Amino acid sequence: MKIIVDAFGGDNAPLEIIKGCIEAKKELGVDIMLTGDRDKIEKCAKDNSLDISPFAIKQADTVFEMTTPPTEILKSKRGTSLGVGLDALASGEGDAFVSAGSTGALLVGGTLIVKRIKGVKRPALGAVMPTSADPFILVDTGANVECTPDMLCQFAKLGSLYMEKIMGIASPRVALANIGTEETKGTPMLVETYKKLNVLNGINFTGNIEVRDIAFGEADVVVADGFTGNVIIKMYEGVAKSITNQIKAIFMKNLLSKLSYLGIKSGMDEFKEKMNYKKYGGAPLIGVRKPVIKAHGSSDAYALKNAIGQAIKYIDSGFIDIVSQLMKDGENND
Amino acid sequence: MKIIVDAFGGDNAPLEIIKGCIEAKKELGVDIMLTGDRDKIEKCAKDNSLDISPFAIKQADTVFEMTTPPTEILKSKRGTSLGVGLDALASGEGDAFVSAGSTGALLVGGTLIVKRIKGVKRPALGAVMPTSADPFILVDTGANVECTPDMLCQFAKLGSLYMEKIMGIASPRVALANIGTEETKGTPMLVETYKKLNVLNGINFTGNIEVRDIAFGEADVVVADGFTGNVIIKMYEGVAKSITNQIKAIFMKNLLSKLSYLGIKSGMDEFKEKMNYKKYGGAPLIGVRKPVIKAHGSSDAYALKNAIGQAIKYIDSGFIDIVSQLMKDGENND
Repeated sequence: MKIIVDAFGGDNAPLEIIKGCIEAKKELGVDIMLTGDRDKIEKCAKDNSLDISPFAIKQADTVFEMTTPPTEILKSKRGTSLGVGLDALASGEGDAFVSAGSTGALLVGGTLIVKRIKGVKRPALGAVMPTSADPFILVDTGANVECTPDMLCQFAKLGSLYMEKIMGIASPRVALANIGTEETKGTPMLVETYKKLNVLNGINFTGNIEVRDIAFGEADVVVADGFTGNVIIKMYEGVAKSITNQIKAIFMKNLLSKLSYLGIKSGMDEFKEKMNYKKYGGAPLIGVRKPVIKAHGSSDAYALKNAIGQAIKYIDSGFIDIVSQLMKDGENND
Repeated sequence: MKIIVDAFGGDNAPLEIIKGCIEAKKELGVDIMLTGDRDKIEKCAKDNSLDISPFAIKQADTVFEMTTPPTEILKSKRGTSLGVGLDALASGEGDAFVSAGSTGALLVGGTLIVKRIKGVKRPALGAVMPTSADPFILVDTGANVECTPDMLCQFAKLGSLYMEKIMGIASPRVALANIGTEETKGTPMLVETYKKLNVLNGINFTGNIEVRDIAFGEADVVVADGFTGNVIIKMYEGVAKSITNQIKAIFMKNLLSKLSYLGIKSGMDEFKEKMNYKKYGGAPLIGVRKPVIKAHGSSDAYALKNAIGQAIKYIDSGFIDIVSQLMKDGENND
């Protein structure tokens, strides 16, 4: 099994990416091919005394900048570490592609270079997130700003399959993100989606979920259009960070408060580990023909290693074959 | 000044409502008229040894149930404590109306019984929320599920005026809730709204705000359609509660952790007070001809007292006259 990794994606590239690959090789025993400028990768490794001899490197002279329009990945920016990685995946030089680079470029390139599974309307970004109980997947977290009810029904199926096959949850509870639990709540698009989900075979639809209940783990799959999903994930991130920062500041206030921290340190460490979304890896681009994983832009070595681990699980689960078969069987909600 | 209060609105009515009114009378020296069943109010007061002799009571035989369709407030449910309160406000028997009852009924009744200020397209619910820095107002938090760019421009103006006149913020920073800061981000409706806000006179528009930054106080006014606003406020509430519950559990774990709490208790108390949204009262229905305040459904006496305090500020600020004049001057963005 070989994972292709964009060595120049994200805020901490290439150093943290290389480190993450070394950890993944060691812990997970996987082959890795880095894409990017060979000289820069080798210099970075040398400067930091890192052994990259086990890795293949596929040359890419440039990097896809965050400010570049995503569609350029198909044109002027095909030769970037991101474009070269997508092409290598599409042509079978590896089994999955992991990048912490531009989400937009990965979406466009994933959809049009790696291509959609036949029958999938629009690929979606999923993100597995922690809660005070068990984790859930949110689909879509931002790939499709505007959606139709049929798209949301596919997201529901794909998200449910993901939780079942990759996260090992039997009969995942699928809920539609909404502003009330009653089936009449929300926009006309959501009211229509509710009706369709309610009669959709093959998923365990539990109805609308008030977004206030998401952080308590009341659903295994939360379905949303990409705009709403992005608001949910970013509010989650922002509020969690704001609250924990404020509490951290309380502990740092004086000697007594610092001492107090010692009495709950083990509990706080467990809490931090529980809520650390980095352990789940990145956001899979669900619905394309080969595994494409978007790692968080701020990925460190730990996050990147976990994104590689997630890619391995994705491959091992046979998820893509299962989705392809499902689409072939005409069970998709057309 | 007389505040009309729905004695039977919310989960804790009538006891907490009556208690909140007694506190408001004592602290704020305001006259209060309760709406609801006189016998029940007097019995509740007697059973709890509460002196309600300073309050007027306007009889309403029934209560507006949360499951009743909101439009019934205009028809079969006009005689409820909520309907009677709105009618009393419209006919000048009081200066403001506070209710912790059905949001939908208050919206419909506020708009059609109390009526819109001339020129206001659609009244909106505002909510003042705490952050790790200063509080902000979110408009709309759920009154208008679908919005046009012109509606959002009005929300921006009304929200900005609210923060200036009632919360005392000079030149409030107005931001549009979106999934990215670039002006091309979001739905076509939001892209169009950005363009209009960018050239709108009389507000300090600072551009799109990524919702992840909201909890850090990066805007004084956050503008959103009612669906997105509702998702924002409920994610805020849910995530804050989930995180604080988890941290509370860490402190309750054993004797050592309980002792540790003592060392940071004062800091935690300050934090709780800072983040307690109840201190800001309720959500004003902005854009109607008289002050209508929606108190939180779970309001206790403290929250209700603060909603009354907010109604007083609303009246004292001359906010409604200022909005009326603004609309007359044709400065609204038609």
